[in-house]
Amino acid sequence: MYYSRYFLPTLKETPSEAEINSHRLMLRAGMIRKLTAGIYSYLPFGLTALRKVENIVREEMNRAGAQEVLLPTVQPAELWQASGRWERYGKELLRFKDRHERFYCMGPTHEEVITDLVRKEVRSYRDLPLNLYQIQTKFRDEIRPRFGLMRSREFIMKDGYSFDIDDRNAEKTYWQMYDVYKNIFTRCDLDFKVVEAETGTIGGSFSHEFMVLAEVGEDTIVFCQNCDYAANIEKAEVVTPAISPSERPKSRKEIHTPNKHTVEEITEFLNVSPQKIVKTIIYLADEKPVAVLVRGDHDINEIKLQRLLDCKTLIMAPPGIVKNLTKAEVGFAGPIGLNIPIIADNSLKNMVNFVTGANKTDYHFINVNLDDFKISQFADVRFITSEDRCPRCRGELEFKKGIEVGHIFKLGTKYSEALKATYLDAQGKEQFIIMGCYGIGIGRTLAAIIEQHHDENGIIFPLSIAPFQIYLLAIDTKNQKVLETAEKLYGQLSSHWQVFYDNRDERPGIKFKDADLIGIPLRITLGRDLKKEKVEVKIRKTGETLLIPITELKLNIEKIMQTL
Amino acid sequence: MYYSRYFLPTLKETPSEAEINSHRLMLRAGMIRKLTAGIYSYLPFGLTALRKVENIVREEMNRAGAQEVLLPTVQPAELWQASGRWERYGKELLRFKDRHERFYCMGPTHEEVITDLVRKEVRSYRDLPLNLYQIQTKFRDEIRPRFGLMRSREFIMKDGYSFDIDDRNAEKTYWQMYDVYKNIFTRCDLDFKVVEAETGTIGGSFSHEFMVLAEVGEDTIVFCQNCDYAANIEKAEVVTPAISPSERPKSRKEIHTPNKHTVEEITEFLNVSPQKIVKTIIYLADEKPVAVLVRGDHDINEIKLQRLLDCKTLIMAPPGIVKNLTKAEVGFAGPIGLNIPIIADNSLKNMVNFVTGANKTDYHFINVNLDDFKISQFADVRFITSEDRCPRCRGELEFKKGIEVGHIFKLGTKYSEALKATYLDAQGKEQFIIMGCYGIGIGRTLAAIIEQHHDENGIIFPLSIAPFQIYLLAIDTKNQKVLETAEKLYGQLSSHWQVFYDNRDERPGIKFKDADLIGIPLRITLGRDLKKEKVEVKIRKTGETLLIPITELKLNIEKIMQTL
Repeated sequence: MYYSRYFLPTLKETPSEAEINSHRLMLRAGMIRKLTAGIYSYLPFGLTALRKVENIVREEMNRAGAQEVLLPTVQPAELWQASGRWERYGKELLRFKDRHERFYCMGPTHEEVITDLVRKEVRSYRDLPLNLYQIQTKFRDEIRPRFGLMRSREFIMKDGYSFDIDDRNAEKTYWQMYDVYKNIFTRCDLDFKVVEAETGTIGGSFSHEFMVLAEVGEDTIVFCQNCDYAANIEKAEVVTPAISPSERPKSRKEIHTPNKHTVEEITEFLNVSPQKIVKTIIYLADEKPVAVLVRGDHDINEIKLQRLLDCKTLIMAPPGIVKNLTKAEVGFAGPIGLNIPIIADNSLKNMVNFVTGANKTDYHFINVNLDDFKISQFADVRFITSEDRCPRCRGELEFKKGIEVGHIFKLGTKYSEALKATYLDAQGKEQFIIMGCYGIGIGRTLAAIIEQHHDENGIIFPLSIAPFQIYLLAIDTKNQKVLETAEKLYGQLSSHWQVFYDNRDERPGIKFKDADLIGIPLRITLGRDLKKEKVEVKIRKTGETLLIPITELKLNIEKIMQTL
Repeated sequence: MYYSRYFLPTLKETPSEAEINSHRLMLRAGMIRKLTAGIYSYLPFGLTALRKVENIVREEMNRAGAQEVLLPTVQPAELWQASGRWERYGKELLRFKDRHERFYCMGPTHEEVITDLVRKEVRSYRDLPLNLYQIQTKFRDEIRPRFGLMRSREFIMKDGYSFDIDDRNAEKTYWQMYDVYKNIFTRCDLDFKVVEAETGTIGGSFSHEFMVLAEVGEDTIVFCQNCDYAANIEKAEVVTPAISPSERPKSRKEIHTPNKHTVEEITEFLNVSPQKIVKTIIYLADEKPVAVLVRGDHDINEIKLQRLLDCKTLIMAPPGIVKNLTKAEVGFAGPIGLNIPIIADNSLKNMVNFVTGANKTDYHFINVNLDDFKISQFADVRFITSEDRCPRCRGELEFKKGIEVGHIFKLGTKYSEALKATYLDAQGKEQFIIMGCYGIGIGRTLAAIIEQHHDENGIIFPLSIAPFQIYLLAIDTKNQKVLETAEKLYGQLSSHWQVFYDNRDERPGIKFKDADLIGIPLRITLGRDLKKEKVEVKIRKTGETLLIPITELKLNIEKIMQTL
């Protein structure tokens, strides 16, 4: 490809809209352009890179026996009503009416549609297993789209769905997909972790996320330094071992704490550590109040809490209700005398002589102990912290930021029951199909690759993703001999590799800068040494440069490519 | 691919929803399934065929120097308001609001989005020409979607847009795309005609449609049997040569014609031919009334009329207005005494002693002549008929039905002016970019291929589109030797061709029927003659069968493929 004929509008300046490196570089390297909030166009260079990711995904999925389909973007409301997600999905589901006033949505995911397709075609156990996937444009009306392709509203996703006759086979498929995903992200040259994950609105019984490690990641992942336990912090279990009390219970005292509402204020005022404080937070679970107790330095994990309470809605109680229940201003709630169910985090089991609110404005209790009130249930309802230990092996934990590029779910019968997707087993008995689903954000994966592969000068594409493998560049474009050699080399190299030939009549500095910016793995420069029939080969990744005789060029490139 | 592992739900019965062959066969051959009105899922077999069409399009576009991009599906209203199409596009444009109550639409076409992209990147004449295309899912909320992929609401389209510095270059690009399109449809093995076409809501200065000839086509095309003139009937010009009058003008008479409103009724009642009658139709052009006169056997072409009147809206006047203007019931309007502008079709120039309404309920005039009233303008405002002659060479005309698979437009500056897409010319002067646009319905092309390539037993895929080239089939699947040979052949043939291996434990009849139905070009059957180391090769297209020694199979297949 000749640069002069290629639509590659590179930018010298960093666009103000971009906050993270991948976004910045994808704009600067002419890969994408914003149409409107969270909606991007792919330019030729960006689309070619995107297709490289897609093809890796396609190859690995096909190799595992999955089959590609293409499902519609526009989906009828009826299917979503049948699964119950029409109401539950929230505002990310873009709903609209057609000209006949019938309701539809733009597909944010395709469990309903694929289950509808499969239930109509599958009759018997002989028609199973099926593993179908698509690579397709989806829409989620994110409230705050940001970071370019990392969190956009319109995005390209590979979503796959498996259909098995029983749990054993479904799990086999699940773990096969787990391996396929590892292969895909390895081929994308990503440094990633597979972590246990929450199932969210998709639902199902268990799930893993594939997390690319990066400072800008929006997810926090926790992993053990000793064993291979790793989880999304939303999911990570906390195991609280019993420890023998360090002090004897003292007798409770009410203390005047005027205007001290927060843990910080109480800590300072009473001169105690946050570990000595118990926070009392009142929630409405399906509109019924419940109090949750956690230590002052811990945070409640509402996903765990909602799962524990098995409720449809969970919100913090508004101030009016808190005041009504505690007979005090907000900030002074405590378990003593509180007449609603009380859930205590497991860590409370080890606490003695702690501080709580007194259910009386401007008063707290000190030296509270577990005998002083009634706990309905102890449970793990908080986020894990660096002071906790690995729930598997008690090893030390590490925390990192991650970008979720893949997510796999064992769905079980959630959708097959809702939409009545059944088959007849060998005994002629009707059974629900067991499902799994498997997603990869294609655009986000591309962004994550750039997030992990760049330097201050630009992108450093892994060979597997690079839109071109070679950037060919002549310095003295006024010299006829140089141009002829460049053309000849371009022709020769193009029969083996995808070559990008910078034939522009521009200053060398501009060409070198663009070459670094767009990050093609090898740069071949026709410069001074052309007289000696030599060209310069620069490896973008290492910065290494080599002077190589033209006659030996092909062989040398092959060798270098093997090291990339 | 093994049939047993492939999601190919073929149907024995003809689905009731399908009215035309391609739709019927795509359903029966497990290529597509309907999700809801005008919205389809592509199953693996259908998707593979679709991708073959896409790749032909991509190869030919790339070869011509066009570059692939991918634009968003969801488009902000602002751009459509700027082009004026937000109001004008009608109900086919699916409009909706996002969570922040901002208006968007699902892109039915991308002139606005691409012009917005290009105007932001192009500064100078050195940045042009650009020829960008995409293959992407579009949505048009058709009032009556039908015929499967022929007229669906969600569909896949190749849409391309060119940007040139002046008319000469823009036309060069236009004719280059014209040739590209001919190559594409030729490679798809389609019998097609290129016809002059109307520009419709896209706008622009001239346009061609690529029409696949088929009885089920929704367009009528007219072409000359003598020269190469061909046009969509909406567009076809009518040239009316002057002929000397066959009779002398007689004097006008008012005739009582009780309850005779229509041409048929008058023809019968007065015992005259429709050629002797002039219909007077009253329209509202931008709400102003105008009468249009055409011969009784002719039909008004409202597209021509609207272009002539240069009006934004054109509707037939409602009965109330007609009564008011003619002082008579509907059905008795005539030009005499009618006090509004009168447009007469050119064919009236040759009429003498004709019949018109009398603007009086239950009365007509006979022996009317052109002197009897005032005509504002003669013009070509009707559809061409088989009695007309070629507007270029006066040759005889032929009419056929066609499926529009491609449409190219010279847009000129319609969108670049509306969206201010300019460049600086060599003299530093700001100029509007000259645009063209080029569409291909990918799914519709696939359907058209099947419409032209099938017989009573099923599809007959052209080699270029067939998802597999060879259908391998063993009859006696209980025989271990047969199975081993089949597996071995499958392996050998798969290294040269895409082979579909029907390894199902089914009766031969079912396998043969499915092979015919899904239309793979060659069927290789391991039958009785396997003992003699021979297999049967059947050519789907001709029905010809050959017994070929296994050792000579590869060579023979290569030869046969060359004839397909």
